[in-house]
This record gives sequence, C-alpha cells and structure tokens, in this order.
Amino acid sequence: MEIMRVESPLTVTNRVAGLEHIGLRVVLTSSGSRQVAVDPVGARDGNYVFTVSGSAARFATGNFDIQTDLTIGGIIDGWDEES
Amino acid sequence: MEIMRVESPLTVTNRVAGLEHIGLRVVLTSSGSRQVAVDPVGARDGNYVFTVSGSAARFATGNFDIQTDLTIGGIIDGWDEES
Amino acid sequence: MEIMRVESPLTVTNRVAGLEHIGLRVVLTSSGSRQVAVDPVGARDGNYVFTVSGSAARFATGNFDIQTDLTIGGIIDGWDEES
Amino acid sequence: MEIMRVESPLTVTNRVAGLEHIGLRVVLTSSGSRQVAVDPVGARDGNYVFTVSGSAARFATGNFDIQTDLTIGGIIDGWDEES
Amino acid sequence: MEIMRVESPLTVTNRVAGLEHIGLRVVLTSSGSRQVAVDPVGARDGNYVFTVSGSAARFATGNFDIQTDLTIGGIIDGWDEES
Repeated sequence: MEIMRVESPLTVTNRVAGLEHIGLRVVLTSSGSRQVAVDPVGARDGNYVFTVSGSAARFATGNFDIQTDLTIGGIIDGWDEES
Repeated sequence: MEIMRVESPLTVTNRVAGLEHIGLRVVLTSSGSRQVAVDPVGARDGNYVFTVSGSAARFATGNFDIQTDLTIGGIIDGWDEES
Repeated sequence: MEIMRVESPLTVTNRVAGLEHIGLRVVLTSSGSRQVAVDPVGARDGNYVFTVSGSAARFATGNFDIQTDLTIGGIIDGWDEES
Repeated sequence: MEIMRVESPLTVTNRVAGLEHIGLRVVLTSSGSRQVAVDPVGARDGNYVFTVSGSAARFATGNFDIQTDLTIGGIIDGWDEES
Repeated sequence: MEIMRVESPLTVTNRVAGLEHIGLRVVLTSSGSRQVAVDPVGARDGNYVFTVSGSAARFATGNFDIQTDLTIGGIIDGWDEES
C-alpha cells in the first residue's frame, strides 16, 4: 500500500455504472502526482492515508461491485511531512 | 484511478476478438505519455477524465468480456490544466 | 493499454509449460525499454501496436491457459513516430 | 517480488474492515520511497525482506480476506546495503 | 513480460507458507534494479531470461498455490548486453 495525502473531493457527474454512488477524492502521492481514490473511511482534506490498489481495492470498499483500482484503506495517526 | 486528458480516437482495423467492437481513445497521462483506453462514457477530445486500470477496467466497461486494462471511468467536471 | 513498436521475434527454447507453443516478440515502449509480448494478431517488425497487460493479457490471447502478462491487442493503422 | 527494508510499525486507528486486526509496517524500497505492508512473518525494524504484491499479496498472508496489495514474504538471511 | 538477468540465488529461511519450498533468485532489471523471482526453468547465474508478473506469475510456476508475483518464464537463447 502507499502513503498519500487527501487533497480534495472530485466532482464527476458523467461516470460509469460501477462507480455511480461513490465519493471520489483526489489524493497526492509522495512524488507529488495526483490520483483518484474511493474513500470508505471518511478522510478529510489534508489527512495522510494509506491506499490499497489492484483487485484488493474493490474488496477494501466492502462492495466488490465498485469498479475502483484505488481505495483509501485507513487514516494514519499522527503522520506529517516526513515522507 | 488516474487523471488523464482525451487526445483523439485510435484506428485499429486488425485487433483481437476480445476488443472487436469497441471504440478506443488515445489518452495523455499527467506526465505526457500516451496510453490507449476503452471509453464507455462518450468523452470528447480535450475532456479531462479519470481512468480505471487492472481487472476493474474490464468490469468498468459493463462487459467483462472486453479485454482492456484501461477504461475511462468518468468525465471530470470543471477540471483544467492544474495537474 | 500502451502503444509499442514491434522490434523482433524472440527465441526461447527452454520455457515454462504455460507458454510452450506461443510466438514471442520483443516490443519497444515509448520510453525505449524492451518488453516481451505474445502476438495473436500477426504483427510484423516495425508495426505500431497497442498492448494489453495484467490478467486481461491472458484473455486477449483467446486462451486463458497462456501465462502471459503482455499481449498485442491490435495493429494501429497509420501510426508513425509522433509518440 | 521486491527487496525492501523494514522501517517501523504504522499506527492506523481508523481503517477499513478488510484490514481490521492486522499489523502494518512501513517499508523502504531500494529507491528510498516508503510503502505500507502487511507482515505475517514477524520482521523487525531494519530487517531486509522481500515483498509480494498484487493479488498474491492476499494469499501470502494466509487469509484471502485481508485486503492488502503488499505483504512481506520472508526475511532475507544476511543481506546488507549492497542494493 | 520483461527481460532480466539472473544474478544469484537468495537465501530466505523465515518465509510465508505460500513460498515454502521454492527456489528464489535475485534478478536484475534492464534499469539495474534488483527483484526476486521464482524459477521453474532452472536458470543459471548470468542467464538472460524473461519474467512473468501479476497473477500469471502464479500460473506460470505450474502450481497456483505458490504466492509469487514474479516468475522466470524462459531462458532467452543467445541474448547478450544489447539491452
């Protein structure tokens, strides 16, 4: 899993059925690039989180029908800019 | 998922059976490299989209028999060059 | 999927059972590195192709028992050095 | 699989159900970036380990319901800074 | 699949059950980084091989219960330093 920081929600009106009712978030990788993740844990902007990728990302949402390849797995306690 | 920009359709006459009747699009990653994605949402050239990779890309098309590893998951509202 | 160029066949006498009777090809990525792909479409040296990776690569061959992680999905019409 | 070095445990109080009772560890890749892995072998800080990624990471824990994409597969005997 | 060169065996006494009785090898990628692969073909140090990754790596060993994400798929005939 990777350590990322939540940046903001993402607004996507026109999307595929497999991602219909899911909140999406823009997350920043440690190298500064942006990715999009599903968030089942309620992270807030600025939180450091770890993310699950691959087929485990679907299971990690708790609903295998959600067609994501990146899911927030948890909010890291007390992490700051050391990465 | 990753944020990409749609560049153009891609013409491929000779292809495998698992991708026979599917529209393909050239998409640009945030680092400027080109990839090829299946588009089930009807994105237009220049649209910013997010893409789903891995085995979720097949499910995201709505038809698991489509043998893609990259599918456009949605068109991002109001995104511009900030990435 | 990625856009690659076919460079040459690859000769591999000693290989695993899951890749026994398959033609293999060396392909060049857009960044110039070499990879090895299964070719079910009959591409020729110099052709620009797109490649399918991950578990979809097995399905794309038309035979799930072929243990590949990279398969040529189609030959791109009229593509040249623009990538 | 990749060779990594264990850095420290990771404290994550708020996490998804699929990773509820699992010890997580921060591991350093050979290029110096940090990732998060599940540890079923009892590695200690500073140990060199190899890690399993993808769907094999779930099986490697011995419990397919653990929603990880990176698992420590073993502690390497007598490895030091040569990587 | 990728082209790599076998460097040496890897000694790992303490490992997960899914990799218990398997020979592991350190392989060098074309960019010079080290990875760890399962070897079902009997490659020797210095051999150029191609490697299979992802879920196909498990099938390529001939035993899906081996929890690897990288397996040597074959020894390349007559390959030398051109990569």
